[in-house]
Amino acid sequence: MKVRQVTINAQPQTGLRLVSRDSKPEGTIVEVEGIPIGGEEIVVMAGPCAVETLEQLTETARSVQAGGAVILRGGAFKLRTSPYSFQGLGNEGLKMLGKVKTNTGLPVVSEVMDTREVENVAKYADILQIGSRNMQNFPLLKEAGDCKIPVLLKRGMMATIEEYLYAAEYILSRGNPSVILCERGIRTFESSSRFTLDLNSIPILKQRTHLPVIVDPSHGTGQRWLVPSMAKAAVAAGADGLLIEVHYRPEEALCDGSQALYPEDFGLLMADLRKVAEAVGRSIYSPKQA
Amino acid sequence: MKVRQVTINAQPQTGLRLVSRDSKPEGTIVEVEGIPIGGEEIVVMAGPCAVETLEQLTETARSVQAGGAVILRGGAFKLRTSPYSFQGLGNEGLKMLGKVKTNTGLPVVSEVMDTREVENVAKYADILQIGSRNMQNFPLLKEAGDCKIPVLLKRGMMATIEEYLYAAEYILSRGNPSVILCERGIRTFESSSRFTLDLNSIPILKQRTHLPVIVDPSHGTGQRWLVPSMAKAAVAAGADGLLIEVHYRPEEALCDGSQALYPEDFGLLMADLRKVAEAVGRSIYSPKQA
Amino acid sequence: MKVRQVTINAQPQTGLRLVSRDSKPEGTIVEVEGIPIGGEEIVVMAGPCAVETLEQLTETARSVQAGGAVILRGGAFKLRTSPYSFQGLGNEGLKMLGKVKTNTGLPVVSEVMDTREVENVAKYADILQIGSRNMQNFPLLKEAGDCKIPVLLKRGMMATIEEYLYAAEYILSRGNPSVILCERGIRTFESSSRFTLDLNSIPILKQRTHLPVIVDPSHGTGQRWLVPSMAKAAVAAGADGLLIEVHYRPEEALCDGSQALYPEDFGLLMADLRKVAEAVGRSIYSPKQA
Amino acid sequence: MKVRQVTINAQPQTGLRLVSRDSKPEGTIVEVEGIPIGGEEIVVMAGPCAVETLEQLTETARSVQAGGAVILRGGAFKLRTSPYSFQGLGNEGLKMLGKVKTNTGLPVVSEVMDTREVENVAKYADILQIGSRNMQNFPLLKEAGDCKIPVLLKRGMMATIEEYLYAAEYILSRGNPSVILCERGIRTFESSSRFTLDLNSIPILKQRTHLPVIVDPSHGTGQRWLVPSMAKAAVAAGADGLLIEVHYRPEEALCDGSQALYPEDFGLLMADLRKVAEAVGRSIYSPKQA
Repeated sequence: MKVRQVTINAQPQTGLRLVSRDSKPEGTIVEVEGIPIGGEEIVVMAGPCAVETLEQLTETARSVQAGGAVILRGGAFKLRTSPYSFQGLGNEGLKMLGKVKTNTGLPVVSEVMDTREVENVAKYADILQIGSRNMQNFPLLKEAGDCKIPVLLKRGMMATIEEYLYAAEYILSRGNPSVILCERGIRTFESSSRFTLDLNSIPILKQRTHLPVIVDPSHGTGQRWLVPSMAKAAVAAGADGLLIEVHYRPEEALCDGSQALYPEDFGLLMADLRKVAEAVGRSIYSPKQA
Repeated sequence: MKVRQVTINAQPQTGLRLVSRDSKPEGTIVEVEGIPIGGEEIVVMAGPCAVETLEQLTETARSVQAGGAVILRGGAFKLRTSPYSFQGLGNEGLKMLGKVKTNTGLPVVSEVMDTREVENVAKYADILQIGSRNMQNFPLLKEAGDCKIPVLLKRGMMATIEEYLYAAEYILSRGNPSVILCERGIRTFESSSRFTLDLNSIPILKQRTHLPVIVDPSHGTGQRWLVPSMAKAAVAAGADGLLIEVHYRPEEALCDGSQALYPEDFGLLMADLRKVAEAVGRSIYSPKQA
Repeated sequence: MKVRQVTINAQPQTGLRLVSRDSKPEGTIVEVEGIPIGGEEIVVMAGPCAVETLEQLTETARSVQAGGAVILRGGAFKLRTSPYSFQGLGNEGLKMLGKVKTNTGLPVVSEVMDTREVENVAKYADILQIGSRNMQNFPLLKEAGDCKIPVLLKRGMMATIEEYLYAAEYILSRGNPSVILCERGIRTFESSSRFTLDLNSIPILKQRTHLPVIVDPSHGTGQRWLVPSMAKAAVAAGADGLLIEVHYRPEEALCDGSQALYPEDFGLLMADLRKVAEAVGRSIYSPKQA
Repeated sequence: MKVRQVTINAQPQTGLRLVSRDSKPEGTIVEVEGIPIGGEEIVVMAGPCAVETLEQLTETARSVQAGGAVILRGGAFKLRTSPYSFQGLGNEGLKMLGKVKTNTGLPVVSEVMDTREVENVAKYADILQIGSRNMQNFPLLKEAGDCKIPVLLKRGMMATIEEYLYAAEYILSRGNPSVILCERGIRTFESSSRFTLDLNSIPILKQRTHLPVIVDPSHGTGQRWLVPSMAKAAVAAGADGLLIEVHYRPEEALCDGSQALYPEDFGLLMADLRKVAEAVGRSIYSPKQA
């Protein structure tokens, strides 16, 4: 195995971090297959936690597309607390994502958790997702920075906003400017919800950085029935997008079924989100507008 | 000094707590001078952190009333971390609240922090506020329960939702059913905001209890510029009301000036809140509708 | 009811807080019936969570005295999460403490939770305890400051060390210099123990303040079997004393039985503590040395 | 690049996790070059945060060896919050560790943070360290499990004890039984120390698992002057070893200098630790005893 060199990037000469709003006052718009993330329109990404079968993925993709989602989420590699839990379908899952993308036209966001997988996941995904537990997996951030496709970087459940911005800086400093931030809840003493969704972070991030900021209300609550309230709150707080778990049969899901919406509830939520978006002077992105 | 008896109330025969939604499926509406808190309409309370002078209180009251607030907040007794900080005007402050109430017609919410003051504060205030640091001051809860005026009970900054509901139960179990809950942020590791506003708690509380739930985005963020985003998010998440700090001259405030809105910004926020309320099928309460 | 005046104490002219080590480099020794707390010798206080019966208190007191405790703990007024839980025996409990003190010679520490009870509890107790949930009950701190007997002030489960020192300052600024600090665990995300005992706070507090610092490993863990390890760790970390819950029949305790030691285990622990104290150049205080 | 297969290990037929004390009542002793970790004797590992120069490493190694440390720590690959901070010497650093090991005879523990580096680090290090931010880097845990040398797995700063044990299970389930656990502080609201060292976790871990448990008081406090108190507390609480940062010139350290002990203070601490170890019926491992 070839030994990698330890590299360190030069700090920008301005003394400002690349992520900082001061270094780039206008907001960054990350384009994904023509969909602008970070502009006036709010982008909704939805799909199952994990890719399980071609049927599950196809059915769920079609239903979220019908509801108004424009990007499909689905994990082929899953981070699981226990080594004895379902770990994802791996390469088979990636291929299914590719097939469903072809069939539906929906671009795909999928998680990568190993430096050795970045290249492979990037073949199938339009956005590389880096999960909460990997927010300070610095070699992975560097690989994602070297890879030039957009990166959805989730906030670490234990990370301060400052640490989060430094994690994004790792990616930008490698020459990849297309980073989407995603608040997904932090760990606190409160156990009524799985995590505490920190919506304060939305305006704080929007002030400090030019990068788009979206919210994952599914992980941020951990319970299906809490998702609609928090999705609406996120839009009202200024989020540029949402990442929502939907499963065509949540009770059969191999992973996080309790936080996945039923397709019909996703459709109802989208109708509500359009009203809230309008109330704050924005709209939900839909392909017809593109 | 007369020695008080330690009393313990009998648990309801149903085995259900009095606060629980199961014991009373329809929501409780707390009426304050004809204003219904907990119904379809969202009630906005606003005013300064502390009563400082008659001019300050009058000017601030008139401006929040012009903006659409229907209840005036203002503390005469202040909980301060340092013994050398301004502790409030005490009885003089209560009298000012009484005067401004007469002049504006705005009912008043004011904090009580000592069992010996309950009776006195209740002479001037329409709602007794019990602050975050006193959420488990059980003798105070009992006195507030014995006093029959409405109580605004703030969530302890380190209290679980279960503990919070038990604190409210102390008041209800003494025969006072008029409790308004108020999420005001919890303490977490994140230091970019003063507290982490836990909006997950809104739908969770609404499911578990029939009591009205409002949000204090001023303490929940600690910074003026974050208040509008979080106020809108709170309404989108289902809050029944808001408690917002406004000061006619925030830079001169003796207490928490950095989180107080300027009157003109409060007015702009109210306009925005009306749109968000409508987007979620509700409206902001205004006296004309009464 | 007489209306109290809001008072504010003048800040010391030195600009230093009264609690600060800089304002008083030598450590404060709080004397309780001849027992020096804060000196080279480590003082062990033990007894039941709550006073339940004269037999329970007497038996437990005799056993902790036999084991080497020199101060008896026992609550007559109990802070309980639920209004339907045992709230303490109140005045009857205080009288039992008085009786057992007379019979055993052990001075007594007992909790006060209401400004109206301070005078009365001070008649029976040698040390007023202010609990974690009341650490920022400022009227209570002021009353304890006006009362001239020693005060054991527990750290709030949600309080930073800075806030804790300010709470002690409330007492000192009223002219009562006899404050004993007590680390008892903070609230964190970890749920394997009831609280996270923060032993880092021991050297930090000893550096910042001249006040004695003790540790309550019973609340700091919430489980009997964890108490010996943490009691030894506290002594090794530099604590000036320990506050340990012991019950003659823990399985019958009306309050916190799961964290109370059996008398025989307390005796064994004391033997171990003597060795650890010696290892760090100190000793456990015993009456023969007085 | 070869596509890796997603594998999932069969759960043990007993239904018990491999880490669980129930599945293996006697404690595991991890042997490192003849040094038994997890037995009656307490093993002290010390050295710099990062390998910086051969002189720095050699001088520091000789001084910690003189003080009584038996394993040398030193990072060649460093996890740094900012991409513009020193990232470690990489392969050069590993070679220096190899050289100093040869010269002093001290076995070496060094961190690995990338799946692609495991093999290479294992050539030079006797123990692979997996850091707090990588505790749930599952591909890395799997690689460490496939590699058969001992692994020092630090607790995630926001990980529950249950999650921690599951992370260790990842390594054991791949056939590597030699895991050393290391409490290094958790993230809480308290900011007086860098982290809150959770010593409650020592007896809890010792009860739930048969694996050795050591403590890192350097990261657990973040400040040099707090390290001795917490090192002694850790031994008193039952730790099987310590991991301590020492630097021959802390003020010149490229990384975490403020928490590194001066060599002379390390020597004094070791003398104190011997007394505390004896007080709890143990001793500090020294090569003469081997």
